[in-house]
Amino acid sequence: MDIDRNGSVTSPRGFQAAATACGLKASGQLDLALVVSQGESQAAGVFTRNQVAAAPVLISKRTLQGHAHHIRAVVINAGVANACTGAAGLEAARSTQQAAARLLGCAAEQVLVLSTGIIGLPLDMAKMRAGLQRAVPALSSTAGPHAARAIMTTDTRPKHAALQAQLPGGTVTLGGMAKGSGMIHPDMATMLAVLTTDAALPHEHLQAILGDAVERSFNRISVDGDTSTNDAVLLLASGASGVAVDTVQAQEAFSAALERLCLHLARELVRDGEGASKFISITVCGARAEAEAVRIGRTIATSPLVKTAIAGGDPNWGRILAAAGRAGVPLDPARLALWVGIGENADLQLVAAGEPLPYDPAQAGARFAAAEIAIRLELGLGSAQASVWTCDMTHDYITINAEYHT
Amino acid sequence: MDIDRNGSVTSPRGFQAAATACGLKASGQLDLALVVSQGESQAAGVFTRNQVAAAPVLISKRTLQGHAHHIRAVVINAGVANACTGAAGLEAARSTQQAAARLLGCAAEQVLVLSTGIIGLPLDMAKMRAGLQRAVPALSSTAGPHAARAIMTTDTRPKHAALQAQLPGGTVTLGGMAKGSGMIHPDMATMLAVLTTDAALPHEHLQAILGDAVERSFNRISVDGDTSTNDAVLLLASGASGVAVDTVQAQEAFSAALERLCLHLARELVRDGEGASKFISITVCGARAEAEAVRIGRTIATSPLVKTAIAGGDPNWGRILAAAGRAGVPLDPARLALWVGIGENADLQLVAAGEPLPYDPAQAGARFAAAEIAIRLELGLGSAQASVWTCDMTHDYITINAEYHT
Repeated sequence: MDIDRNGSVTSPRGFQAAATACGLKASGQLDLALVVSQGESQAAGVFTRNQVAAAPVLISKRTLQGHAHHIRAVVINAGVANACTGAAGLEAARSTQQAAARLLGCAAEQVLVLSTGIIGLPLDMAKMRAGLQRAVPALSSTAGPHAARAIMTTDTRPKHAALQAQLPGGTVTLGGMAKGSGMIHPDMATMLAVLTTDAALPHEHLQAILGDAVERSFNRISVDGDTSTNDAVLLLASGASGVAVDTVQAQEAFSAALERLCLHLARELVRDGEGASKFISITVCGARAEAEAVRIGRTIATSPLVKTAIAGGDPNWGRILAAAGRAGVPLDPARLALWVGIGENADLQLVAAGEPLPYDPAQAGARFAAAEIAIRLELGLGSAQASVWTCDMTHDYITINAEYHT
Repeated sequence: MDIDRNGSVTSPRGFQAAATACGLKASGQLDLALVVSQGESQAAGVFTRNQVAAAPVLISKRTLQGHAHHIRAVVINAGVANACTGAAGLEAARSTQQAAARLLGCAAEQVLVLSTGIIGLPLDMAKMRAGLQRAVPALSSTAGPHAARAIMTTDTRPKHAALQAQLPGGTVTLGGMAKGSGMIHPDMATMLAVLTTDAALPHEHLQAILGDAVERSFNRISVDGDTSTNDAVLLLASGASGVAVDTVQAQEAFSAALERLCLHLARELVRDGEGASKFISITVCGARAEAEAVRIGRTIATSPLVKTAIAGGDPNWGRILAAAGRAGVPLDPARLALWVGIGENADLQLVAAGEPLPYDPAQAGARFAAAEIAIRLELGLGSAQASVWTCDMTHDYITINAEYHT
């Protein structure tokens, strides 16, 4: 069950993809991706909790409510978010469904739509229609990585992967692609990700399994604390492997594989976070409940002071404890313990029972200066724990976001 | 009732101050301030809600519980926060009380202590004692601005002011000083501020009036979303004016003056926020409740994407609506309206009834590029409203915080 970094949404049987540049990105780069299920797929989706949800999020949620059992395609455009676009935005999302359906010979309700890019701009339907007309004849079962490139915005590289899972009834494949890399602070859903599998299982199970996997992967990362208007994760199951996920054992194996894939893609998003120069793993343990560990972890992960200290390689560990203290979770400062380290190994203890320990500044400095940093905070209150992942906040984050729109 | 920008904690009758450099700041700049009430003052305090509260916060809270009716002095050091310092930190805070009390000829329980600076470092008591020994003979009734300078950390300028209020019984003076300028996201209390008045009123009234004033001033500003371990606002009332605040009318006039002073100092903190190049006023109106307007305002004020867009003068208004949508307050996207403008005057409407309006990019750009920017978001749900204040997020914020500690 190894991650195949060359894999993609077209790795599972029964899926094709295509990508084209339809002119939504001023740069002329790829900006329209199409993922097509050759037969009818079962589908599941998890969407942003941001109340200012984009038109494609509203339309895809509604589409899944009645038609999750026979989805044929996902259309994703980058460059324009189609959010805060009012009635015209909803109409554009519906027109996208219709245009793709006509070309694919299916019903509009069998097409899901996602958008990412600048908020408030109208989606140019002439460009979208022309792009879809070029994309459909180009559909192929090897174009998954190409599609992953087309959904990028400020991402510096495409994120796609696949893996195989051995189920009692045989081997199934799972594939996926995701894009970041700003406005990343998923809440119940996430940035954009499209996942595919050739396993056979009904929408209802798919939805439950996807919700759990997203909760422990995409919902545990943060780049900048801003939950997007367009966050969405879609999962399509073609059943083309002929392997049914119909026993508890099969479901557990499938769930584990899906979580592994989601976690891989989520961590790739953090590594490519806007302006990121460092990857930070934060583990909060000794909590009374997992949700409390997550809340403290996310507060540390979104603290500008923690993120800038790490950008500067500055062992200013007090900021980590200060962030924990304002997370809104009851804690006992006298029980706190803190370790830092390189990679995933938080080996240098800085705080024990709330008291600072003497430490070698060179040793601490080396850890805060590493490209991959592990932080472990022990609360001493229980046995629950959780990990979250984030990146540092650098000058490049400011540059990217002060100049993104214009 | 005009703000006197040359005024300070020593403007009200009955107060003296002093400042000295005791060596806590490596730069050799002023780092120890002393504010002394010549007689016994009534006192009130509001402190951080951060659970990892600094030792001086814990000690001053406890001191106020039993001794708020006869406070004689406040000792403030900068450079070392005396937070996350365990039992030794509490002992250092108590020793500071004792050292000051011995020199002033009062009881240790009549001295309040505050610290600001780097978390996790021990407070050097030899330096503190030597500093206090030099400060006490230097006490004067004109040294308030000097003390305001001594409590600075990354602040670029001291913040102090005073104003007079006409009460039924006569004129009273209120003075104050405050310091920022990072880890500023007050929650119930704030960064450090010391306020003085020569009005006469008992601790109980003082505490209630201070709580209200802080809630509408310091608690409505944000620089970076990080609530400090050391936030504290103290108010000392000497009664030296002989004017008692003992009627409803007098209390209202006094409260209004105190809120005015707090608001002035709070806004000065934002103007001098770490790396700030712009001052941003955010008014959320049409809310069902003031608390909901505050919550949405604070979410916009802490959004890195909003703050970086404004740093870049980029009219990327969609980020404002996106932040509102994730604030956790129920809202109806179809009722949202948005205006932006220069100074306090949000005159250019960009969104009406949830729909983007056509606008002149040059006009919008001029507003986002201004040094003082007003944002008004109408929710269309009720009649409550609130304003919050913040600054933009610039390269200088990253530079300051990546290099603060080392």
